[in-house]
Amino acid sequence: MSYRSPVRDILFSLKAVAGLPEMIGSELDADCDWETISSVVAEAGRFATEEIAPLNRAGDLIGARYENGVVAMPAGFGDVYRRWAEAGWGGVSAPAEFGGMGLPHQVNVACTEIWNGASMAFALCPLLTEGAIGALKAFGSRELLDLYLPKMIAGRWTGTMNLTEPQAGSDLNAVRTRAERAGDGSYRIFGQKIFITYGEHDMVENIVHLVLARLPDAPAGTRGLSLFLAPKFLINPDGSLGQRNDLRCASIEHKLGIHASPTCVMIYGENEGAKAWLIGEENRGLAAMFVMMNAARLAVGTQGVGVGERAYQQALAFARERRQGRGPKGGDGMAPIIEHADVQRMLMTMKANVQAARGVCHLTAASLDLASHGRTAEARAAGADRAALLTPIAKAFSSDIGDEAASLGVQVHGGMGFIEETGAAQHTRDSRIAAIYEGANGVQAIDLVQRKLPLAGGETVRNEIAGIRSVARQVAGTGGDGFGGTAAVLSDAADALDAATIAMRGWLQSDQESALAGAAQYLRLFGLTLGGACLAKAGLAAEALAVQGNGGELARVGLARFFAEKLLPVAPGLARAIAAGSASQQTHEAILADSA
Amino acid sequence: MSYRSPVRDILFSLKAVAGLPEMIGSELDADCDWETISSVVAEAGRFATEEIAPLNRAGDLIGARYENGVVAMPAGFGDVYRRWAEAGWGGVSAPAEFGGMGLPHQVNVACTEIWNGASMAFALCPLLTEGAIGALKAFGSRELLDLYLPKMIAGRWTGTMNLTEPQAGSDLNAVRTRAERAGDGSYRIFGQKIFITYGEHDMVENIVHLVLARLPDAPAGTRGLSLFLAPKFLINPDGSLGQRNDLRCASIEHKLGIHASPTCVMIYGENEGAKAWLIGEENRGLAAMFVMMNAARLAVGTQGVGVGERAYQQALAFARERRQGRGPKGGDGMAPIIEHADVQRMLMTMKANVQAARGVCHLTAASLDLASHGRTAEARAAGADRAALLTPIAKAFSSDIGDEAASLGVQVHGGMGFIEETGAAQHTRDSRIAAIYEGANGVQAIDLVQRKLPLAGGETVRNEIAGIRSVARQVAGTGGDGFGGTAAVLSDAADALDAATIAMRGWLQSDQESALAGAAQYLRLFGLTLGGACLAKAGLAAEALAVQGNGGELARVGLARFFAEKLLPVAPGLARAIAAGSASQQTHEAILADSA
Repeated sequence: MSYRSPVRDILFSLKAVAGLPEMIGSELDADCDWETISSVVAEAGRFATEEIAPLNRAGDLIGARYENGVVAMPAGFGDVYRRWAEAGWGGVSAPAEFGGMGLPHQVNVACTEIWNGASMAFALCPLLTEGAIGALKAFGSRELLDLYLPKMIAGRWTGTMNLTEPQAGSDLNAVRTRAERAGDGSYRIFGQKIFITYGEHDMVENIVHLVLARLPDAPAGTRGLSLFLAPKFLINPDGSLGQRNDLRCASIEHKLGIHASPTCVMIYGENEGAKAWLIGEENRGLAAMFVMMNAARLAVGTQGVGVGERAYQQALAFARERRQGRGPKGGDGMAPIIEHADVQRMLMTMKANVQAARGVCHLTAASLDLASHGRTAEARAAGADRAALLTPIAKAFSSDIGDEAASLGVQVHGGMGFIEETGAAQHTRDSRIAAIYEGANGVQAIDLVQRKLPLAGGETVRNEIAGIRSVARQVAGTGGDGFGGTAAVLSDAADALDAATIAMRGWLQSDQESALAGAAQYLRLFGLTLGGACLAKAGLAAEALAVQGNGGELARVGLARFFAEKLLPVAPGLARAIAAGSASQQTHEAILADSA
Repeated sequence: MSYRSPVRDILFSLKAVAGLPEMIGSELDADCDWETISSVVAEAGRFATEEIAPLNRAGDLIGARYENGVVAMPAGFGDVYRRWAEAGWGGVSAPAEFGGMGLPHQVNVACTEIWNGASMAFALCPLLTEGAIGALKAFGSRELLDLYLPKMIAGRWTGTMNLTEPQAGSDLNAVRTRAERAGDGSYRIFGQKIFITYGEHDMVENIVHLVLARLPDAPAGTRGLSLFLAPKFLINPDGSLGQRNDLRCASIEHKLGIHASPTCVMIYGENEGAKAWLIGEENRGLAAMFVMMNAARLAVGTQGVGVGERAYQQALAFARERRQGRGPKGGDGMAPIIEHADVQRMLMTMKANVQAARGVCHLTAASLDLASHGRTAEARAAGADRAALLTPIAKAFSSDIGDEAASLGVQVHGGMGFIEETGAAQHTRDSRIAAIYEGANGVQAIDLVQRKLPLAGGETVRNEIAGIRSVARQVAGTGGDGFGGTAAVLSDAADALDAATIAMRGWLQSDQESALAGAAQYLRLFGLTLGGACLAKAGLAAEALAVQGNGGELARVGLARFFAEKLLPVAPGLARAIAAGSASQQTHEAILADSA
């Protein structure tokens, strides 16, 4: 069950897939260098491997405990969290002005994977804090920034996102929590929020809640939502902690997984109202919320990569140890099960999918870096559009992949995988949430089709497909024999994606139901094809290194080939399924009628 | 969370897909009629819905409890089990001679689904008992039959299968449990078995263990395995219970799911040896074991159908109640989420896959009926071959489908799906085991490719594909517009399956590794294609009924269409992946090297 952060794979992906080293100092206005980045990622890997990873199993067994409004974290979580914060990990990509490292978001995503691979339940606390920091930074007043950001970036205070209510999940139109103007520039919040991750815990001295609420005179729907900051403890003008605010955790949920991450019911304003401050403008909360949602969506995709990697490592270790049956090499005794072709298939599927999803997440982060630090307004706009296109794919594809990898990990273990002590089952229980929260994967697919395909008149998605085709051509032209059928399959997949995109864009005008009916398969098709291109890019970079005398990365060619030959060939079939539209769902009422 | 046994769907599948009513009295030498069968299935459905289903949640929460060699079942399990046994459900397809109902195995499979949909943990006890009955019936001496079968069929004694040992899971060559001849015709068993389902419990007065063990002079490997019967309590000559045998349960496992089903470590022969009797011949235990394994494999596939159906029903009920977002029909308020195309996609995927897997299981059961009760030796041989071909598909495809449906069920619930109180998560935890036990699905795939494709010189598989093509032609020729693209996609899938079969059979001669590397995808391709044919057959039967004036089943046409248009189009892609062989796995050692 030991886990080692995949630093080598992560750095290779940042280099070869996202192109981070070339971006620094050229497209990207960033004050850092690749050597620093490499050592930061390596150090994050060391910390996660040595300090966080050992918490994961006990965190699952013990879980967060609720009593009288207080949430006790499992033993060790608080200590490790504080060491993590003291080492500065709360500010990897936060601005230096507020105490952050000021590194590109790509480095932050690399670290996010590392924390999540070590313990998803632990890593959720920083994940939410980072989302809150992002919204605050983008829309908060100078006063709020100065009061809150340094403490949050230093990890001394953590942050939460309070969106969901019992009647308002995917649909935020239904948010009922209300805010009243206090007359002194502050507000009072009243209402109940559910599913609030780390809404209460005992690792830090204060918790900063970002709360979506509705003013009395606000318009209906999401255009009447405002975003507020409500701290657990009010802050005195000198920055010290003051009175307890009128908000509390009423209970925590009993969940399938991530047991150590408290999922809280939060009650605001049982008495005089929870004191709160506006972030951004009144009734413009949705825009601020989307800043934190988008960062969180990429982070949740990255969780899938992290958990998938951990499941892979554990299955690999088991497959090398466990002996059953004769291997293809023959011999008297039983062979390690890794010698069996079907076990190889499972392990390689896990590795290839995780690496593909990692590449998609890194590309998304690179686009976000361009969006915020590109040298020209044009580059920033293109970066923002590309990030917008890729974010739902990074979120949904990667979280699905994480869950599939965790399930394959159980399968590799055979009967032992079903026994909780083995630890493989925990990964499936933990990973399952990633496809649900921060916008369920079905919602991501609809976002991709309805809002992202039309970006820049369709230019953003056309560029993405052109980029994939270009990789396929490079493999065909310069890739060695080791790539096997990669170029042909990747090219066919790009054609399939292109055709499906054209169909989708047509339906957006004429037949919404067909677009919506195919959205999930379209997102999968996109993720697979882009993931295949990421692996092929890594393979091409490995071949280029080999030409320079370093053959140590050549296995990446084989991984790209496996993905292309064994996993990507379903792409044209997905396009055919999408092309069938929604005709077969039109009689859904009769089809879904009672079968008893 | 209420569950109603899908009696209507099951009976329609038995009729239209398996053709049971026509088989009775024609191909099949069976003393029963369709009316009796219908009422037996309906009564099973009533019992499961009213009595078993309510146990499922408490069984998960409480689980089986171990203390000092005794396993206490959760409250209610024992009472319901005894009522179930008293109603005769332990003998649906058992011979009337020993107290059974003597109905076709298809009816038994229908009931197996019904018990498992109500509670998989409950239904495992009968499932294992039935496997033991099958082996005993086929190979036991007349004395053993008379002593044990009536009690087991009456459900007063339950049965177990003791195969696995710590070092011997998929590979039974490694079995070490030893048997010694006692000199009086009986034997003494010494050894440890693990993962023994219902190895100990408090619902009945005796437990009959079937144990695989090795005689001192036995050859190495599986050709040296013998099968023994060792009861918990020895039986006096008058049939009453005698002394406690030298065997005990040492502990039970803490598992991901099926918490109410005790998974036992069994210790045989700590003192004088567990008294046991040979089933069949010495060193021929594997053949006897395969009788029970094969029945159990189909039953495990059926578990996937049952749990998948339950997950579907729960998700459907939630999707009708839960309101989020505006539906395509517009309106002011929030629409039930079932009005959203992506939710329909998930529900229809669950329903279509479950119904397809049900059809595959029913076809397998029909083949088993022909094998045992066909009117001619030729029919029996063909039935046996077809059952042999279909069993690994029924097991692996259906258990995978069950797990996928359970996961989709969680997804339909959104955040509520991750909360244990909702109950959707239990289905994923329960269903996950079905792909693992009774031969992991990877082992099923290898069995399909290596042992089943060569049956009857390849004639068995060719017939199966010809049957699928015939269905596609019927849809093209006589099916109405409601079938949409069904005929074309099904025909392409049959072509893909045919091509993959030819490739596989070639590799079995020349390139084992390529055959093994593609085995899992081949099984999936087979399951999908055959499942699509099953749904299409049901759709054709529904259209035929409509011509006769009964249009009440026409929704089955739409379901077949959805499956064909939306799920089956990946078939040619799977064939392409299979055709790529094992080339990309040849460098697996480098690819699966350390990534830290």
